[in-house]
Amino acid sequence: MYKIGIMGLGHIAGVMADSIKKLPDHKVTAVASRSLAKAEDFALKHCKSAMTFGSYEELVREDLDLIYIATPNHCHYGNALLAIRAGHNVLVEKPFAMNSEETAEVFREAVGRGVLVCEAMWTCFMPIHRTMLGWIEEGKIGKVKYISSNLGYDIEHTRRLTDPTMGGGSYPDLGVYTTNLAMSILGEDLIATSCYARRINSGVEKDVFYTLENQDRSSVAASYVTMCAATDKDGSIVGTNGRIRLVNINNYERAVLYDKEGRILEEVVRDDSKPNGYALEVKACTRAISAGRRQTDEMPWSRTTALMKMQDTLKSMM
Amino acid sequence: MYKIGIMGLGHIAGVMADSIKKLPDHKVTAVASRSLAKAEDFALKHCKSAMTFGSYEELVREDLDLIYIATPNHCHYGNALLAIRAGHNVLVEKPFAMNSEETAEVFREAVGRGVLVCEAMWTCFMPIHRTMLGWIEEGKIGKVKYISSNLGYDIEHTRRLTDPTMGGGSYPDLGVYTTNLAMSILGEDLIATSCYARRINSGVEKDVFYTLENQDRSSVAASYVTMCAATDKDGSIVGTNGRIRLVNINNYERAVLYDKEGRILEEVVRDDSKPNGYALEVKACTRAISAGRRQTDEMPWSRTTALMKMQDTLKSMM
Repeated sequence: MYKIGIMGLGHIAGVMADSIKKLPDHKVTAVASRSLAKAEDFALKHCKSAMTFGSYEELVREDLDLIYIATPNHCHYGNALLAIRAGHNVLVEKPFAMNSEETAEVFREAVGRGVLVCEAMWTCFMPIHRTMLGWIEEGKIGKVKYISSNLGYDIEHTRRLTDPTMGGGSYPDLGVYTTNLAMSILGEDLIATSCYARRINSGVEKDVFYTLENQDRSSVAASYVTMCAATDKDGSIVGTNGRIRLVNINNYERAVLYDKEGRILEEVVRDDSKPNGYALEVKACTRAISAGRRQTDEMPWSRTTALMKMQDTLKSMM
Repeated sequence: MYKIGIMGLGHIAGVMADSIKKLPDHKVTAVASRSLAKAEDFALKHCKSAMTFGSYEELVREDLDLIYIATPNHCHYGNALLAIRAGHNVLVEKPFAMNSEETAEVFREAVGRGVLVCEAMWTCFMPIHRTMLGWIEEGKIGKVKYISSNLGYDIEHTRRLTDPTMGGGSYPDLGVYTTNLAMSILGEDLIATSCYARRINSGVEKDVFYTLENQDRSSVAASYVTMCAATDKDGSIVGTNGRIRLVNINNYERAVLYDKEGRILEEVVRDDSKPNGYALEVKACTRAISAGRRQTDEMPWSRTTALMKMQDTLKSMM
């Protein structure tokens, strides 16, 4: 039985705890918030037998196989270091840190301690993501020329998103998905070639429109993200010999493979009877830990590093 | 019976001639190319009883209710003036002219002669376009916040598209549709706020990624067009209270209305048993002519003027 701890008990932590319940060999055994009352309330709702703590320092003293870090964006770095220095394997919510310097420091620390670190890029662990990449690898759409994707929610009035000191802005929460999609297909060494953002009064971006290109400039990924409206969240991957439509790039509902004439060749649909993306990323972490590895294949450190460098670059272009 | 003439006998002219056959009260009675042999060949294929001419000057001497101008992009201006000065009503293929000065001159001449001029923006005449605008006017998706659209074909090796002296580039042929979609919804006085284009050796753009905003910056239309790949051609209109998906913005196949939770509320599908967009734009012209009007409601001069000014602006930003 893998013992999972959760640090930071907001909405997403609840979804994770519920998802883990469906894994027979995993259990949430400890949860921590900065408020003990909140931790007790969380355990009552999501994981009755779990130990509850009112500080993260207490949590990291426990015997755990993996700590899931679901604190606010600007806390990921410090919380990850706290857990790693106590010898823990960590699954860190997106955005992994506030910038690439923090990111590098977390990985340095993980190397020193020999623990696993994984960014919770749940889409990478979903079967439809693997199917989509398989189609591309098999040449079913030819050479990829264009990727377009968008991700938007009507969450303009969420404080953590509007506050620059909390790692706010549309990009850190949403752009990480659109950029990760592009990197999954085109590789990690992309160039940011255009970026247009609109800001709110606090200075953070409310939306961003940007293009990324591979090194030889043969492919472009054009994306937009926004905290101002619920967009369709679609992705489109256009190749020389066909295309793929992704319905909801943030929680793939469906992927459709079309030939050059627009006829449907294959289609895959999300199977909600199977473990969801949260459960799958936790399973991938414990599988890697059992194999004595410090990274997952699905979301290696190089990807997290590339994503965070791209965030630095795009922020400088906004 | 309305007598229609066609000037310029490439592929699109053939599609138009075939489309007009399905209108019982319209007939193609004269066609002209710069080569008489080509005109005769065209008539044999598409309109057996039509008079054939090897020059446009001969065509404009005929008695016609409307001349459809389907010559190459850089010839539209001169050909339109030739027809208008001979007293003809004209339906001019997109792009209407090479720039806004040419456009203004054509309209000045049309005022002087009292003839109808219409840009052949066929999408504006399609029933699905009107349905989509109706949904928005009725408030079914709330206030429009984002529009995204793309239009791309694998036509990189078509000479007229790569040759700058022939009005080449992705934008004049394709961007006119994505910009027209934005103007149809957000109004004609849009601001171009970002533009990123990639060029081929001849200097024309092979693709363009751009954003347009309305005057108060409350709405953004993000588009890309390309001559390098067959994109999905989708449009998405995201409002505060729902969204619309358009399948193929260049020849609407389907429009789907979703509520805020992503549930389908209404759906309309193209009816191929009805007259197509080519026939509908010709009918709209002859209806306006019969009413003594110089413009159609669906594609007024203000729209053509705004589109051409936007082309000037975007070209200057590329």
